[in-house]
Amino acid sequence: MTFNYQAAFQKALGEVHAEGRYRVFADLERDCGRFPQAIIHKDDGSTQEITVWCSNDYLGMGQHEAVLSAMKNAIDHVGAGAGGTRNIAGTTHYHVLLEKELADLHEKEAALLFTSGYIANEATLTTLAKLLPGVVILSDELNHASMIQGIRGGRGPKMIWRHNDVEHLEELLAQLPEDQPKIVAFESVYSMDGDIAPIEEICRVAKKYGAFTYLDEVHGVGLYGLRGGGVAQRDGVLDMVDCVEGTLGKAIGVMGGYIAGSAELVDAIRSFASSFIFTTALSPVLVAGALQSVRILKEAQSMRDEHQARAAHLKMALEEKGLPVMPSESHIVPVFVGDPVHCKAISDRLLNEFGVYVQPINYPTVPKGTERLRFSPTPLHTEEHVEHLVDALDALWAECKLARGELPTDRIAAQ
Amino acid sequence: MTFNYQAAFQKALGEVHAEGRYRVFADLERDCGRFPQAIIHKDDGSTQEITVWCSNDYLGMGQHEAVLSAMKNAIDHVGAGAGGTRNIAGTTHYHVLLEKELADLHEKEAALLFTSGYIANEATLTTLAKLLPGVVILSDELNHASMIQGIRGGRGPKMIWRHNDVEHLEELLAQLPEDQPKIVAFESVYSMDGDIAPIEEICRVAKKYGAFTYLDEVHGVGLYGLRGGGVAQRDGVLDMVDCVEGTLGKAIGVMGGYIAGSAELVDAIRSFASSFIFTTALSPVLVAGALQSVRILKEAQSMRDEHQARAAHLKMALEEKGLPVMPSESHIVPVFVGDPVHCKAISDRLLNEFGVYVQPINYPTVPKGTERLRFSPTPLHTEEHVEHLVDALDALWAECKLARGELPTDRIAAQ
Ligand SMILES: Cc1ncc(COP(=O)(O)O)c(C=O)c1O
Ligand SMILES: Cc1ncc(COP(=O)(O)O)c(C=O)c1O
Repeated sequence: MTFNYQAAFQKALGEVHAEGRYRVFADLERDCGRFPQAIIHKDDGSTQEITVWCSNDYLGMGQHEAVLSAMKNAIDHVGAGAGGTRNIAGTTHYHVLLEKELADLHEKEAALLFTSGYIANEATLTTLAKLLPGVVILSDELNHASMIQGIRGGRGPKMIWRHNDVEHLEELLAQLPEDQPKIVAFESVYSMDGDIAPIEEICRVAKKYGAFTYLDEVHGVGLYGLRGGGVAQRDGVLDMVDCVEGTLGKAIGVMGGYIAGSAELVDAIRSFASSFIFTTALSPVLVAGALQSVRILKEAQSMRDEHQARAAHLKMALEEKGLPVMPSESHIVPVFVGDPVHCKAISDRLLNEFGVYVQPINYPTVPKGTERLRFSPTPLHTEEHVEHLVDALDALWAECKLARGELPTDRIAAQ
Repeated sequence: MTFNYQAAFQKALGEVHAEGRYRVFADLERDCGRFPQAIIHKDDGSTQEITVWCSNDYLGMGQHEAVLSAMKNAIDHVGAGAGGTRNIAGTTHYHVLLEKELADLHEKEAALLFTSGYIANEATLTTLAKLLPGVVILSDELNHASMIQGIRGGRGPKMIWRHNDVEHLEELLAQLPEDQPKIVAFESVYSMDGDIAPIEEICRVAKKYGAFTYLDEVHGVGLYGLRGGGVAQRDGVLDMVDCVEGTLGKAIGVMGGYIAGSAELVDAIRSFASSFIFTTALSPVLVAGALQSVRILKEAQSMRDEHQARAAHLKMALEEKGLPVMPSESHIVPVFVGDPVHCKAISDRLLNEFGVYVQPINYPTVPKGTERLRFSPTPLHTEEHVEHLVDALDALWAECKLARGELPTDRIAAQ
């Protein structure tokens, strides 16, 4: 008997269904100029107008007039795609300019573009492990899947430190020989909880033990720091961060990823990283849009202030109703549910009955038992949007008899 | 003494320099509407008009008016970026439509988009290894870096068969237990040599031993087959291919990647692949452009015919001068050099003295000792372009006293 591949796929899918975490993608049509409003296409062929409450286009830059014009100009000027890898006909002048702009944004000598933030993490961490023989990577336990994949890809030893726990990190570092290369890898804003790393303390400890510091600012870029250079810029500690990693797909509103660091670091990753070398370069259309967006964000402190104010306002309004807001320090507003089936059901009802689109956040994105709804208010969400959302949640919480008030801190802490 | 990271990066770069394979990216500005003409920006700030001879935008679809309009319409309609992962606000209606279109192109039930062809290979092969416990992957020895990374990522056993050698493949398959899951992974057009796999024979042997067949059609999509479905479509054997993988970044002219296969295969990869799940979705602007491009390519047999004619013409013209064209069966025209320093020097002179832009192809893209120039003629390269190129090569070959005529078959075979 030969192996039955279809049956194996069906079995794996059956398990996902049984655990209540089968994902159905919402088929959306954003309405450019009216974000966060959008149209959803339903299975029965009908459509519905909705408010998007879970986008990572945190400032609505994806519909900013100047960004859109820059993209259209690039289309007219150079066309649709890069037509090759960076080395073989795929580097356009826009790539060169954006790399300079990003290096400047993060106060570094150089920057390097990748096709996504995911690949920036994967490529850089895998390649660092190859370039630094014997390196051990010390990774925050809640690091993003792309960092985990990069660390696994490097095949070297790793140590996991408890989330944002600087003492634990120091304990681990102190066990290692002084001359062994070490990378401390972590994020600034943890996007599913909204907490922020103590970057300065982490870097101080890392430097004390001679470690290289690697910081994922994917959810910080554009949103924190006087020029939008991220939380490390806000905290004035960029000089202690050896490699900053970011995305062009969230606050910047387009798509793509990058790192910034010393000229030698960037040149080495450029020269050795498989997933940088052997892939078609980012489309110049995206690069031109991101270039314009970064330039705008450097000057956009008032937008950043509004964004924070909107998030604070939403948290307060939810707390006033006793809804279980998780303790976020950032622009991200997670509301605890703790069960994948409830989480999906509430999100379905929010959509169908209230026109509120928020995706349930289930395993594997977060640990089982910590399922949640995750709201990302933007400066474009109005007072009325917030009121409508809070009323809808209040009504559903009452009807479904869900817990209010205190959070089950044991479960959240156990993440 | 703590570890010196900068010195480690410098040392690695020093080795690349010493081997003559340090890469300097050409800073290009395509001139939309005049492809293959472009402008190159030089280090001294000057610019030069050139003819691009190494783009993978094989048919010039990256400047096709209808593709560009579709992208501009998408910008006006929905904006710059997807704003989230596929599951969290990032699936647009364009994604849904393009996945249907690609499934149809390859005569399959379903298709799935990725941010690149690289990620399509990496994600799918890694995930198949997880979903099929005990699977062994049988990989052609010249498979692309992205397939190799996917196979490594799966961490299961692998067997390497000699390039396009069906007998060797059968020998390996025959050693394995009948009921063990097996994946035969290969490409249709090998892009650095231009040879084409015997897809039918490979699939027949694979099926005889109950193996799953995985075919990378990255350099075949749009270019072969009556509707541009690739070499497997041309050969009428798509029903024996379980998973087709392709890119939106070469003949389609935009950026992104995909797989097509059974509904269960696609749903399983969609549900389990880390680098599919945890990354911002392809920008709807790219998706809209690719959708238009695929629709055009389905009807574009005359463009495919012209493309083949142009490649045949270039090969003949080079052979008439005794220049060492490698034995390509496809649209790719590699000319053998066999030394990284010569290869780079010739390409520099082609650019500076003749305005011909072709990148030297050195290790790690091809094995050491098989360095080459790789030309990709398009239907937009005119008779005059070809003549100018052949004359330039003829002059340089004479001046540099490079070998003509017979190829060093031992070195090429030893790849
Ligand atoms: C912390 C973190 N790092 C990296 C990424 C990947 O970035 P991108 O979406 O550009 O691939 C994400 C999300 O997608 C993320 O949340
Ligand atoms: C055979 C092959 N597969 C996959 C890829 C990756 O495709 P993409 O450029 O879309 O990442 C390439 C080239 O880049 C390739 O040559």
